[in-house]
Amino acid sequence: MYSVEAFGSSSADAPFEKITIQRNECGVDDVEFDILYCGICHTDVHFKKNDLGGTKYPIVPGHELAGVVTKVGENVDKCVIGDHVGVGCIVESCLNCDACADGDEHQCEGGGMTMTYNDDLKHGQLSTNTGYAFGGYSRRTTVNQRFIIRIPHTYPLKYAGPIFCAGITMFSPLKYFGAGSGGKRVGIAGIGGLGQMGIQLAAALGNEVTAISTNPTKEAKCKELGAKHFILSTDKTAMESAARSLDLILNTISANHSCKEYLPLLTRNATLVQLGLVLEDQTFAQLGLMFNRQSIAGSLIGGMPETQECIDLCAEKNIRPDVEVICADQLDSVYEILNNKNDTVKRYVLDLTNSKDV
Amino acid sequence: MYSVEAFGSSSADAPFEKITIQRNECGVDDVEFDILYCGICHTDVHFKKNDLGGTKYPIVPGHELAGVVTKVGENVDKCVIGDHVGVGCIVESCLNCDACADGDEHQCEGGGMTMTYNDDLKHGQLSTNTGYAFGGYSRRTTVNQRFIIRIPHTYPLKYAGPIFCAGITMFSPLKYFGAGSGGKRVGIAGIGGLGQMGIQLAAALGNEVTAISTNPTKEAKCKELGAKHFILSTDKTAMESAARSLDLILNTISANHSCKEYLPLLTRNATLVQLGLVLEDQTFAQLGLMFNRQSIAGSLIGGMPETQECIDLCAEKNIRPDVEVICADQLDSVYEILNNKNDTVKRYVLDLTNSKDV
Repeated sequence: MYSVEAFGSSSADAPFEKITIQRNECGVDDVEFDILYCGICHTDVHFKKNDLGGTKYPIVPGHELAGVVTKVGENVDKCVIGDHVGVGCIVESCLNCDACADGDEHQCEGGGMTMTYNDDLKHGQLSTNTGYAFGGYSRRTTVNQRFIIRIPHTYPLKYAGPIFCAGITMFSPLKYFGAGSGGKRVGIAGIGGLGQMGIQLAAALGNEVTAISTNPTKEAKCKELGAKHFILSTDKTAMESAARSLDLILNTISANHSCKEYLPLLTRNATLVQLGLVLEDQTFAQLGLMFNRQSIAGSLIGGMPETQECIDLCAEKNIRPDVEVICADQLDSVYEILNNKNDTVKRYVLDLTNSKDV
Repeated sequence: MYSVEAFGSSSADAPFEKITIQRNECGVDDVEFDILYCGICHTDVHFKKNDLGGTKYPIVPGHELAGVVTKVGENVDKCVIGDHVGVGCIVESCLNCDACADGDEHQCEGGGMTMTYNDDLKHGQLSTNTGYAFGGYSRRTTVNQRFIIRIPHTYPLKYAGPIFCAGITMFSPLKYFGAGSGGKRVGIAGIGGLGQMGIQLAAALGNEVTAISTNPTKEAKCKELGAKHFILSTDKTAMESAARSLDLILNTISANHSCKEYLPLLTRNATLVQLGLVLEDQTFAQLGLMFNRQSIAGSLIGGMPETQECIDLCAEKNIRPDVEVICADQLDSVYEILNNKNDTVKRYVLDLTNSKDV
């Protein structure tokens, strides 16, 4: 193992501090890279604050890594030294089950995926001094090439991290639920970090996009990102006028809400995909689904081949998240902002090169 | 219009009686046929008793018609005099919308389908003396050829009616939700009229079928019909052993129940299709759907091309519902039986030829 500097936290309430963690040496199947940027996901805040329980401290969050390859194992054919690469939400899976064979590593049935941080290592592909994974608020990492995503050199590294989380979270259900070849009327409900990517990706794939938000000030931004229509979801008349107008809705809302509110917007044979970490039960009336052959589905990130496809599309179509680059000494204040209502479409991205101290 | 004898009822509580109704003459696009058999669906009981409200009296129920063609209009190319034909749950639709063009007449967006009885006529393809449709407990009917299903001569007419209701209700979601080409692990929950057809059709399409029931005495029958496995849903251990074992569940349960109970049986990327007329809201936890990319969907009967395909498959594979033939004088007692817990897999079928009086 080797030592590497990271920005972590020792408890739910403790500020970020500079710590040293241990990562495994670069094995024959591994890629080692310098992390230049790491996106800050709202999930990072939940884990850091132990909102879901079970957080292991010290925690080093971050599952939106982007950087430059420094070393590759002898079996590695995915990249060479100097290539731009990234890591998203997954760092291990069994690689033997049907799901892994299908490129659905996030659905691994041979013990489950290992998430990029705060998750027990379980497949022998990684090791740390603690037995659990450390994320990307750190200067360097080493992972099996299976979980490495190639970032096209034309794509600025600071934008890449969020593609591996928010981007793939939207891209995967667009593909899986029938909008991958375009021509569909796609609604994106909730215009935050996920929503902004969803609008751009759905439009880039050739769909007609409707943004749905409780915040009227987001209309201009949504249209700039590629939405053709905007529905203010608190406007009953607007919601009624849009009845049966959508083939697919990707609902990114993570606050408790009722998915029933969005079902009337679906046409026949249409699907509502729930993407937010909503813990309360949802309710629906099954007669409505029956008469219209509609579905309510869930989706969570995506597998590695799809993630690669997503960043390649982003590079080709020049799709970029709206980011604000910060340094480690701003982590505590950014977490405070995110912990309050995060009603912007902006993604904060940690710049490791320029982060010296907290 | 012409007069025809029917067996109808004048109120929720009134017994069946012999009445005379009026149907339209055979137009250029129409097929007229003598109804020899009409299946008795549990829905008939609900409508007759006005359980859902809005029943128009006198009511002549019946949407599982089978008989022999007596007259065809000059544009008719679907059948000739003497052919065996049937009518299911639909007798009119706009024939102009996308749904109709897709052969999804049951989802007609140009005013909606006209159901075979107790529904206002609205597309000008049919007429009656009351302005609403009369069903198949009657000696003859005349409908647009679009809603006529050809019954292969090798298939006994008395079995055909239930195929146009229970049969298509199961066949359509099998096809739509990915089990049409076989190779899937399909669960059929609720083993009544729908369930018995579901087992046979899912198996005939080449799937591995698991029957799921609260009634252990149904196991033998389910296996005889083609189920490979049987799960007693009240047996917690059996349900746990079957966790994540199914790609698709067709849930026919029409009593109030919680669909959450069946979700653990689904594997990743699997779908639970709700088919029963359950009026109470259902609840689900969206995190479960997300982690497994699962869907909860609804489906209702099916369109005309699919219904034709279904009866053709039944004829080819010799799939038959378990029927008991009755005459009109037994209608009241059969309705009484159905109105109490109907826990058999048997379908009652009204024999019009041998029904003289109530």
